[in-house]
Amino acid sequence: MFREYDVIVVGAGHAGCEAAHAAATMGSRVLLITMNMQTIAQMSCNPAMGGVAKGQIVREVDALGGMSGIISDKTMIQFRMLNRSKGPAMWSPRCQSDRVRFAEEWRLALEQNLNVDFWQEMVSGLLVEEGKAVGVVTQLGIEIRAKAVVLTNGTFLNGLIHIGEKQFGGGRTAERAATGITEQLVRLGFEAGRMKTGTPPRVDARSLDFSKMEEQKGDEQPGKFSYLDTPVLAEQRSCWITYTNEEVHSILRTGFDKSPMFAGRIKGLGPRYCPSVEDKINRFADKDRHQIFVEPEGWNTVEVYVNGFSTSLPEDVQYEALRRIPGFENVRMFRPGYAIEYDFFPPTQLKSTLETKLVDNLFFAGQINGTTGYEEAACQGLMAGINAHNNAHEKAPFVLHRSEAYIGVLVDDLINKGTEEPYRMFTSRAEYRTLLRQDNADLRLTEKAYALGLASQERYDRVVRKKEQTAELVGLLKKHKVAPEEVNPSLENQQSAQLREKTTLYHLLKRPELDMPKLRELSPSVAEALASFTDEIQEQAEINVKYEDYMERERLQVEKLERLENLSINPGFDYEKLTALSKESRQKLSRIRPETLGQASRISGVSPSDISILMVHLGR
Amino acid sequence: MFREYDVIVVGAGHAGCEAAHAAATMGSRVLLITMNMQTIAQMSCNPAMGGVAKGQIVREVDALGGMSGIISDKTMIQFRMLNRSKGPAMWSPRCQSDRVRFAEEWRLALEQNLNVDFWQEMVSGLLVEEGKAVGVVTQLGIEIRAKAVVLTNGTFLNGLIHIGEKQFGGGRTAERAATGITEQLVRLGFEAGRMKTGTPPRVDARSLDFSKMEEQKGDEQPGKFSYLDTPVLAEQRSCWITYTNEEVHSILRTGFDKSPMFAGRIKGLGPRYCPSVEDKINRFADKDRHQIFVEPEGWNTVEVYVNGFSTSLPEDVQYEALRRIPGFENVRMFRPGYAIEYDFFPPTQLKSTLETKLVDNLFFAGQINGTTGYEEAACQGLMAGINAHNNAHEKAPFVLHRSEAYIGVLVDDLINKGTEEPYRMFTSRAEYRTLLRQDNADLRLTEKAYALGLASQERYDRVVRKKEQTAELVGLLKKHKVAPEEVNPSLENQQSAQLREKTTLYHLLKRPELDMPKLRELSPSVAEALASFTDEIQEQAEINVKYEDYMERERLQVEKLERLENLSINPGFDYEKLTALSKESRQKLSRIRPETLGQASRISGVSPSDISILMVHLGR
Repeated sequence: MFREYDVIVVGAGHAGCEAAHAAATMGSRVLLITMNMQTIAQMSCNPAMGGVAKGQIVREVDALGGMSGIISDKTMIQFRMLNRSKGPAMWSPRCQSDRVRFAEEWRLALEQNLNVDFWQEMVSGLLVEEGKAVGVVTQLGIEIRAKAVVLTNGTFLNGLIHIGEKQFGGGRTAERAATGITEQLVRLGFEAGRMKTGTPPRVDARSLDFSKMEEQKGDEQPGKFSYLDTPVLAEQRSCWITYTNEEVHSILRTGFDKSPMFAGRIKGLGPRYCPSVEDKINRFADKDRHQIFVEPEGWNTVEVYVNGFSTSLPEDVQYEALRRIPGFENVRMFRPGYAIEYDFFPPTQLKSTLETKLVDNLFFAGQINGTTGYEEAACQGLMAGINAHNNAHEKAPFVLHRSEAYIGVLVDDLINKGTEEPYRMFTSRAEYRTLLRQDNADLRLTEKAYALGLASQERYDRVVRKKEQTAELVGLLKKHKVAPEEVNPSLENQQSAQLREKTTLYHLLKRPELDMPKLRELSPSVAEALASFTDEIQEQAEINVKYEDYMERERLQVEKLERLENLSINPGFDYEKLTALSKESRQKLSRIRPETLGQASRISGVSPSDISILMVHLGR
Repeated sequence: MFREYDVIVVGAGHAGCEAAHAAATMGSRVLLITMNMQTIAQMSCNPAMGGVAKGQIVREVDALGGMSGIISDKTMIQFRMLNRSKGPAMWSPRCQSDRVRFAEEWRLALEQNLNVDFWQEMVSGLLVEEGKAVGVVTQLGIEIRAKAVVLTNGTFLNGLIHIGEKQFGGGRTAERAATGITEQLVRLGFEAGRMKTGTPPRVDARSLDFSKMEEQKGDEQPGKFSYLDTPVLAEQRSCWITYTNEEVHSILRTGFDKSPMFAGRIKGLGPRYCPSVEDKINRFADKDRHQIFVEPEGWNTVEVYVNGFSTSLPEDVQYEALRRIPGFENVRMFRPGYAIEYDFFPPTQLKSTLETKLVDNLFFAGQINGTTGYEEAACQGLMAGINAHNNAHEKAPFVLHRSEAYIGVLVDDLINKGTEEPYRMFTSRAEYRTLLRQDNADLRLTEKAYALGLASQERYDRVVRKKEQTAELVGLLKKHKVAPEEVNPSLENQQSAQLREKTTLYHLLKRPELDMPKLRELSPSVAEALASFTDEIQEQAEINVKYEDYMERERLQVEKLERLENLSINPGFDYEKLTALSKESRQKLSRIRPETLGQASRISGVSPSDISILMVHLGR
């Protein structure tokens, strides 16, 4: 009934879709099994891709030949480059997506891959022979064999939905939970845990008064995720910003006695950085308001996602609180927010390929590993898909290092530190973040993906061209000298110091007040010299020139970190006094009390910058 | 938390969507409650609208101001007018739809109606006070009140899915069943029953060899459903035809011992006219092949619907049989076919408004009434929506008679005859079918809908214009005489008898060998006289002229039927000898043994033409 498969992917969310696509593109025969073919690549939570550190991951996935960037570009309704005012390490692309289009484009992309087959059913177990995964068993009792299996079950494993005091089994609202896999894996010796996540109510845009909110438009010149020629938005939809207030908070508090979180009915830990609104008002009792992003769900629909208002309080409390938010006075809800608990497997049980240590040929990706976020899931899917293919074809593992990609940081964190709460990526998790920028993901990764057979020739050629042209331009900047009389009038205009002698463009560009556009205005001959380089190349060269010192400094810092990693910490050290540490770090360090700085650095949620602070403090 | 509603509609399939739209358009505040807002107007079965008798219903729904025609027009990928070679009573529009687009357009259409609110949750019961429905209770325990409630639960009430020996609760595959409502209604005194329907496997177009099948293209000049200015297809996708064979049949027979139908695990009766393939080879054992329509699921997807291969045999038997079908040798399945059992309420418990006799303000529409088919569901939804609105606003009931619309026939059949198996519309169910044509649904119905406030001014104006212009043209045909010398040469070319004297165009048009296009070729002056009328008006006038005798004869026939309806039948009458009767009629008449012809005519499945045959026989 089924072909001989190299790879079976279970689940068709962000992780499963990337895994299937990657393995298939590399040449594996892939079977993608999903409980519902109508919900392939369904965005379960907010209709958006990217964001701080997450946008970098999408760019990395794209550079590696994954599809998330391309699909996002085709289906976005708004684009913003976050943190433009900060250094380029912080620039983070983010888009709002049309939820229906996003899912549809992913499905069509997979259908167009001749190596991807589909099967709609629930997988209820694995076929394991002599410690090796050799396939899956479905609810109907069908056994399907493959050389490798990738599990991407999302929130479906024994999913339990909570709204106030009510509980329902389900993998998402109105969808069934998946059963059988956890129990089997535990029998095989796996440690399983429980996590929790949540989603806000969806409301009717027709019932909102947008005049009481702040409009958040897309960028005037919208960017995109993919390094390929995907479309650029011609028009965009706006989001809107509003705020909770004391009244909203006190109404929410009236539901606390029925909160499944506060009452302890929810055992799993939720995402610290994407807390429910009740969590926020509880943990940050001093804040008198919290920001709410009102996000459209697509080009045409009136459904709206109330980002920042994730909640599992009773639905009537949700409603009463919502309608005290400015603009929401007449709100009509479409669906209440809810919390969902699901099984995960602590990722310390994985190798760096995302293969499990206990069962060969079995890979985990996405929320099953204790992560949260579409982007985190997508990149794990990609890595698991690549390695499942490599495994099935007896090829070498493909691993990215912390210095090569956020993806490397993520996998290294997961498998070495594990995670006790849903793991989300931040720029602060990366020690080499000035190197791991969104603008250079292609330069960092495409060559590797091309060697794997995952990135196309077109991608590869573009990267080679980009590298050559950037080098050429940097060379030109270092060589091209301008004379004082040529550029001083212009420098004066730009409130930049006058030249006394001939100076290279390279040195001028290092001045903080100057950038490439201003350089072009220095003189007609400079403008002419730069004219043959595209905006992308000019930006690239500018970053290289302006930030080379930062990058160098960062490398030195890291070396120091490594040297000092074994510095011991006094068992009685009072972390609470060290207020420069994040609140999370202080809590965790106080609880776990690591004996050395190295040990501290492997505690989930203790960021490299926290370690630096500690190091500085201990060094005194 | 909720507004005060006039009408609550439970379920958002074809019935629920039309009900919500109709009541809202007429001015009711409507709450549409669905278990999943992502699956509004999901086509559960084949991706097509219309067909014989069903296409007429879609046109009627459109003429009344419903949305099914407009949505179908916007989302079709192929159009065919079936039975073009037969008389105009048989012409039946049918389209293939893009499944995703269809659902999306319906949802957007509902969102654009300011009177329609949405709520995503399972309704678990009704609020009934003093014999009146006053609202619903949801799974979360929310009570929502309204002046009228329309139930359109489809296959979800205690839905049970069967594949071979496996059974799963579910309203559709991968979707949860709905519970609570049946039990409550039974406690309230309702009779409930169980029905069954089924769906074929979905397969991968990339695995089929279309060169071994017959291509079925759309019409060269595609038509459409709506009388409004909806788009006409510029390009179309083809369907393909192939056939089962003896080998397919014998493989299917190997699964009969595991068939949930044959083993008696399925209690409900299935749709006689849409039987499973195992049913077909069982009931028509002499047929050595059955037709299979291979229908694309949309513009771009590779998913294909195997129409004619509905089955609940074990999935491996489905597969082994499928791949013996020409073109399916290398087939890959996406999802197996399955049967589903669900609760219905015998529709004799309804008034002609689709309000229940037992509980005021409670309306039923669609499969809950024992019908099958999107179109049958849609028109019931429309009628229930109209009458729920009228009820809520203390307005007169809106009922269509058998002589006015297929919709009238359907409702009259349901409430008077009931149905023991899923009820589907046929032209043969209508006594006045020459009157109930697809071309004149607007003329029959739009004025009524306009008076209700459901059809727009634009619709109404178009109908008035169409009526006036048709009358004008018929008048002209009756007045305009042509001389022998003017038209005889042309008549000779068209092998039509020569004229001896001046004759009206009206008389010439009555000749079977002539039609309106040929009339236009008779002479330049005739062509000129007709030139100011559109194709639609010319077709309309032609039908009026050519078929007026048929219509007249039909009316006489019906009068006779009515006069003789009480004719008594000998209790020992041997129906089996009367082979002109359909097999179904012979079976049912033999079992039920009606005492009179009138009684016979109210037995479900005994068609008016069967009654005519009986009448003729009894008259001897």
